[in-house]
Amino acid sequence: DRPLTILAGPCQLESADHAQMIAGTLKEACDKVGAQYVFKGSYDKANRTSINAKPALGLDEGLKVLQSVKDEIGVPVLTDIHEADHCDPVAAVVDILQIPAFLCRQTSLLLAAGRTGAVINVKKGQFLAPWDMPNVVAKIESTGNSRIMLTERGVSFGYNRLVVDMQSLPEMARTGYPVVMDATHAVAQPGGLGGASGGQREFAPILARAAVATGIASVFMETHQDPDNAPCDGPNMIYLDQMPKLIETLMAFDALAKANPIII
Amino acid sequence: DRPLTILAGPCQLESADHAQMIAGTLKEACDKVGAQYVFKGSYDKANRTSINAKPALGLDEGLKVLQSVKDEIGVPVLTDIHEADHCDPVAAVVDILQIPAFLCRQTSLLLAAGRTGAVINVKKGQFLAPWDMPNVVAKIESTGNSRIMLTERGVSFGYNRLVVDMQSLPEMARTGYPVVMDATHAVAQPGGLGGASGGQREFAPILARAAVATGIASVFMETHQDPDNAPCDGPNMIYLDQMPKLIETLMAFDALAKANPIII
Amino acid sequence: DRPLTILAGPCQLESADHAQMIAGTLKEACDKVGAQYVFKGSYDKANRTSINAKPALGLDEGLKVLQSVKDEIGVPVLTDIHEADHCDPVAAVVDILQIPAFLCRQTSLLLAAGRTGAVINVKKGQFLAPWDMPNVVAKIESTGNSRIMLTERGVSFGYNRLVVDMQSLPEMARTGYPVVMDATHAVAQPGGLGGASGGQREFAPILARAAVATGIASVFMETHQDPDNAPCDGPNMIYLDQMPKLIETLMAFDALAKANPIII
Amino acid sequence: DRPLTILAGPCQLESADHAQMIAGTLKEACDKVGAQYVFKGSYDKANRTSINAKPALGLDEGLKVLQSVKDEIGVPVLTDIHEADHCDPVAAVVDILQIPAFLCRQTSLLLAAGRTGAVINVKKGQFLAPWDMPNVVAKIESTGNSRIMLTERGVSFGYNRLVVDMQSLPEMARTGYPVVMDATHAVAQPGGLGGASGGQREFAPILARAAVATGIASVFMETHQDPDNAPCDGPNMIYLDQMPKLIETLMAFDALAKANPIII
Repeated sequence: DRPLTILAGPCQLESADHAQMIAGTLKEACDKVGAQYVFKGSYDKANRTSINAKPALGLDEGLKVLQSVKDEIGVPVLTDIHEADHCDPVAAVVDILQIPAFLCRQTSLLLAAGRTGAVINVKKGQFLAPWDMPNVVAKIESTGNSRIMLTERGVSFGYNRLVVDMQSLPEMARTGYPVVMDATHAVAQPGGLGGASGGQREFAPILARAAVATGIASVFMETHQDPDNAPCDGPNMIYLDQMPKLIETLMAFDALAKANPIII
Repeated sequence: DRPLTILAGPCQLESADHAQMIAGTLKEACDKVGAQYVFKGSYDKANRTSINAKPALGLDEGLKVLQSVKDEIGVPVLTDIHEADHCDPVAAVVDILQIPAFLCRQTSLLLAAGRTGAVINVKKGQFLAPWDMPNVVAKIESTGNSRIMLTERGVSFGYNRLVVDMQSLPEMARTGYPVVMDATHAVAQPGGLGGASGGQREFAPILARAAVATGIASVFMETHQDPDNAPCDGPNMIYLDQMPKLIETLMAFDALAKANPIII
Repeated sequence: DRPLTILAGPCQLESADHAQMIAGTLKEACDKVGAQYVFKGSYDKANRTSINAKPALGLDEGLKVLQSVKDEIGVPVLTDIHEADHCDPVAAVVDILQIPAFLCRQTSLLLAAGRTGAVINVKKGQFLAPWDMPNVVAKIESTGNSRIMLTERGVSFGYNRLVVDMQSLPEMARTGYPVVMDATHAVAQPGGLGGASGGQREFAPILARAAVATGIASVFMETHQDPDNAPCDGPNMIYLDQMPKLIETLMAFDALAKANPIII
Repeated sequence: DRPLTILAGPCQLESADHAQMIAGTLKEACDKVGAQYVFKGSYDKANRTSINAKPALGLDEGLKVLQSVKDEIGVPVLTDIHEADHCDPVAAVVDILQIPAFLCRQTSLLLAAGRTGAVINVKKGQFLAPWDMPNVVAKIESTGNSRIMLTERGVSFGYNRLVVDMQSLPEMARTGYPVVMDATHAVAQPGGLGGASGGQREFAPILARAAVATGIASVFMETHQDPDNAPCDGPNMIYLDQMPKLIETLMAFDALAKANPIII
């Protein structure tokens, strides 16, 4: 029943200046309405649709950028990891290690992440039911780490489309761990553009709102000042200048939801 | 941007006394919080899973019950029709004719319903995309009737399960017609009990809330004082004594949603 | 373990001459390879996507055409019925009454059809699991009629797409009734063209073959001499001049499948 | 149009003796009917449902077992890889490197595998459309390796269930690469047993047959002399003593399919 946490930032890290610009904008917006804020940015994109996609910063450079966000903006940071041997160096800088949806059952990665002691945010695979997540949780808990978050990002619904089952949110909350709605990946259309994923960013605020109304812990959103020219996930990122108003609205729904809790 | 309309009542009409008891309870609850109320009850269940299901009142007796609700409780009434030649006698009593999901493309039924001039509420088939509904609308409009409502009640998601795609709500709103969320049929598990449909009533308020947060015109819910002993749809009907609090909460979300509209 | 029955003809009846031309062509092709043949044609299309679709012949004219096919070509005929009060007049002419997929749970239609004593072919709804079909069968059996066939025509798979689950064929065969694969509707893309359904006729022979290899009783296919100018279902109908070779190949797979039966 | 290749073996490698016993049995069965045979066995199971699942042999011990199969039985071998730095040591022994479905878009793994020059068999993710596979192929081809195979193993269909879309087989064949049907994983019910995946092995021969009838290059099947006591995937593995007859039947369907090719 604590107020909403906003996990937000660009899909791919671009530079320290760019990351700090986005983090600063979002921190200000969150501070204004009492939301907690965590900066999100990826140093690697391991599952791009096409081999021709623009490369990311990589581990070393990415961690420097994330450290600069912590130092300059004073907010916690989150990044996603794809290989077990990245967990330790990443956890030395990053507050929340995120397990990508495709890798959410990969035991070696879950164990390596768990052992760092950092908070672990696992995205539910597009091929998993919400009641399958306790098995994922148990893998992380086996390392003695119970700082866990579980994220809904949509489930496969036919070809090249995801659907968000709002029932999954209270279902995952049964684990006792905080539940996150990833509102921008959920509107992605995987592979929908042939050599890239499509998306429908105009629906992201709707999914965010609907999820917040059910009473969740956090919303995850990717944002960019110029999504159409961003290195990845452009079609589903939200315009940065629309984020402050969106966060304000989500906080109003959050307050109402938490004043009227539903427990399944 | 008018306040929420509540379409609610038992799955199957049982008697005039029973219908008036439910209608009276719900009218009082709606009046208290400023919601418009329409009583819902079926005189026939044409698509029961099993031939052994309890029979319904039938057309003549059912219409008498619906008329008594109008006379005694003073609220508009809605019922579902399954055969073209029922449209005229039903429309002589009933305010809103509802087209069941399985029949939502059946031209003869849509035309007969449209010609009555009554309000027509079409449930989107479990096998249809929201962007297919303009073709359904055009069939009704061809009769000169443009008093139309469109209802989401879940879409097929694998076997014996539905999922509600919240994106379908603004998508259907693009037609310009009011959009309804059917929160109790959406948690049905069709055929899930072998000889009957299962359901998860505990999730109905969650779906109702999430849908209202996106800014819709109306919520449809089935309710009963004793769902486990109701003649049909027991597993997904909401307990009648929980409805007043639920309606009150939905009205709070509705006010917030309509103060912060999203248009796609 | 009897040889394959071919249920085939145009989507919509056009004229006696047209029906006889198609029936004659297919009878000759089936006779040549030892397949049983039943002519299929619809006198009404109750569920067209759009109100603007070309109208069908109607009940009276349609039955005359079907009678002429029986008289002139000497083959049994099948048609689909959408209203309970059509069952008796249709059964006076037609050998197999077909229940459309959308209506496969509509009790009044199943009972009226069953009472005629004709063979009843029920298409499994796009929203049903194969193990839900015994409930449908029981409705027909309650009339004392056990001349029943069950047809797979694809199940909803996301929006605007069907998928055929080959496991449904032996699953439905557990009822003891003959199982039919509808190879052309299964490649339809419902609503996929906006104002009409799309289709991928090039995949129909693949699905037919795969289904026959599992050991089924019958294949249903729609065919036309000029599908692109047919009044309906053009995108998924097979060219008439390709049918003889296709039927010959299916009979070879059928012989092999029935020499090597699999029972679940 | 070459005869069918059978990729088969136990889910998890157990010992050299066990692997040779299975490989020997299958080689004899394949030789008898003219099928090419490749032994399959996993040294690691990176994506087990539960942390409590029985551990696998590991890389070093696994490769010794695979080498012994090559030496003693004289057949090529296939194993699956989950980490980029395993590719080189594995390719020193193994003929076909298999990319698991969950990792089919993981660029670093695809590139490392491709660079070994070994044959790469990629399983299509349960979350991918068949027309998304050319992007996967392009990643491997970018290493100069065009020895590629593409495997269908079912696509997510609601929760805890897969469905095989037979249309995906000719669709993937459009790439020009050999297409494989994984008949046993396709009948798995992911997470269906709570702490483990369920399965319906009785349906695997049906899917294998249906797929072979469409004209594919290869069938992948897991098999064990005692599936119910196997360390993994018991519910969907085929009894070893049923494999010879099954392979014989598949070869008969294969001959018929290749004598009557369908090209999309």
